[in-house]
Amino acid sequence: MILTPGTLFLIPVPLSPDGAETIPVSVQKTIEPMRIFIVENDRTARRMLRRMGFTADFSEVTLITIDKHSKIDPKPAINSLMSGHDVGLLSESGCPAVADPGSPFIREAHRNSIPVVPLTGPSSVLLALMASGFNGQSFVFHGYLPIKPNARLNSIRKLESDSSANNITQIFIETPYRNNEIVKAVINNCRPETYFCVASDLTSPNESIISQPVSAWKRMQLPDFHKIPAVFLIYAG
Amino acid sequence: MILTPGTLFLIPVPLSPDGAETIPVSVQKTIEPMRIFIVENDRTARRMLRRMGFTADFSEVTLITIDKHSKIDPKPAINSLMSGHDVGLLSESGCPAVADPGSPFIREAHRNSIPVVPLTGPSSVLLALMASGFNGQSFVFHGYLPIKPNARLNSIRKLESDSSANNITQIFIETPYRNNEIVKAVINNCRPETYFCVASDLTSPNESIISQPVSAWKRMQLPDFHKIPAVFLIYAG
Repeated sequence: MILTPGTLFLIPVPLSPDGAETIPVSVQKTIEPMRIFIVENDRTARRMLRRMGFTADFSEVTLITIDKHSKIDPKPAINSLMSGHDVGLLSESGCPAVADPGSPFIREAHRNSIPVVPLTGPSSVLLALMASGFNGQSFVFHGYLPIKPNARLNSIRKLESDSSANNITQIFIETPYRNNEIVKAVINNCRPETYFCVASDLTSPNESIISQPVSAWKRMQLPDFHKIPAVFLIYAG
Repeated sequence: MILTPGTLFLIPVPLSPDGAETIPVSVQKTIEPMRIFIVENDRTARRMLRRMGFTADFSEVTLITIDKHSKIDPKPAINSLMSGHDVGLLSESGCPAVADPGSPFIREAHRNSIPVVPLTGPSSVLLALMASGFNGQSFVFHGYLPIKPNARLNSIRKLESDSSANNITQIFIETPYRNNEIVKAVINNCRPETYFCVASDLTSPNESIISQPVSAWKRMQLPDFHKIPAVFLIYAG
């Protein structure tokens, strides 16, 4: 007998505690019958699932935890999928496998001809790109820039010159407690006419999107971005 | 008297005719009281708004049409915003200003200190990236590749070598009637171990996501992607 494998569903979660309404009805319908989820953290995953309208008793639910910091073993999840169960993959915030771990599971699913279905939901990178007004027809997401001041400065300057040469939007993130540092580094080192956007606290009541030339940033009283989730964009096209 | 400006809302629309459930409730609530929209095409925009649950009489609604092929004049929309009206920007498919026009309006809104609010919804580029299993911590969206065969071939080879050198996911699109051509160009010119993903008809009942090494693509009976909306990804990390 050949078993039909289950489907690996990629499940977005809200970006902010009050962001449940950013999750489409289709996601709620899809997760409701599911009983196996791959998550980063048990406790927050349970809270997130409830917030998205998941009603099942958690004693009937298996959570497979992946640890960001250790090697990911996709085997248990793949075995469940191969024996016919649907499995949901969710991250701590936003869309799984974008700006976070999870892609090894997805790659392994494809290797085993397991269907993969991505569900629609909030992505801070995408929302920031939309809202920036920068070029959305050519863009790069770099993840984190180097931490050491000199390497970081060189990296910012290279992003600016590449953006100018190729008309591309440069997108990056930072550990939230270093946000103010990186904002200052951009403002103090990019050309006055280069555009800089900081999109912070997206989808929350405190959402803020500032997209201005560096010259305008210099005249502004800088907001405090310390420890606030933010996405940064540079455009010199 | 100083008027408070309205807000420019960036409104996602479904990727497929049956994709209404991919639009979050928050979008429906936000658009319901709105009476001014910036759209690419009157007729399809009206249909799209209805599909997303918009109930107002269209005789009370102003649609400002932008033509992809001519210079965009943001003035009428900016004037409405400056006089206190909310305005919604929507494209023909997916998220506005990502892989399509619209960003000049957004830039002009920021120039006039008009608040810009991006709403969550489906993006074929993002869904394809999630589902590919490729690197989601570093990726580039290139838009369209060059059309001329030689330039296109060089471009595909450069994407592959850059992906390998920098561990980045390369994402691009094609005019749908040239889909089969570009699939063959990738399969016939990339290394056997390079990963290639075609994500087509996303969010529709015919959704297909094939993510395999080029060697596996070569053994496969190729599906017909002719005229089907698709996103292409290469990963050689």
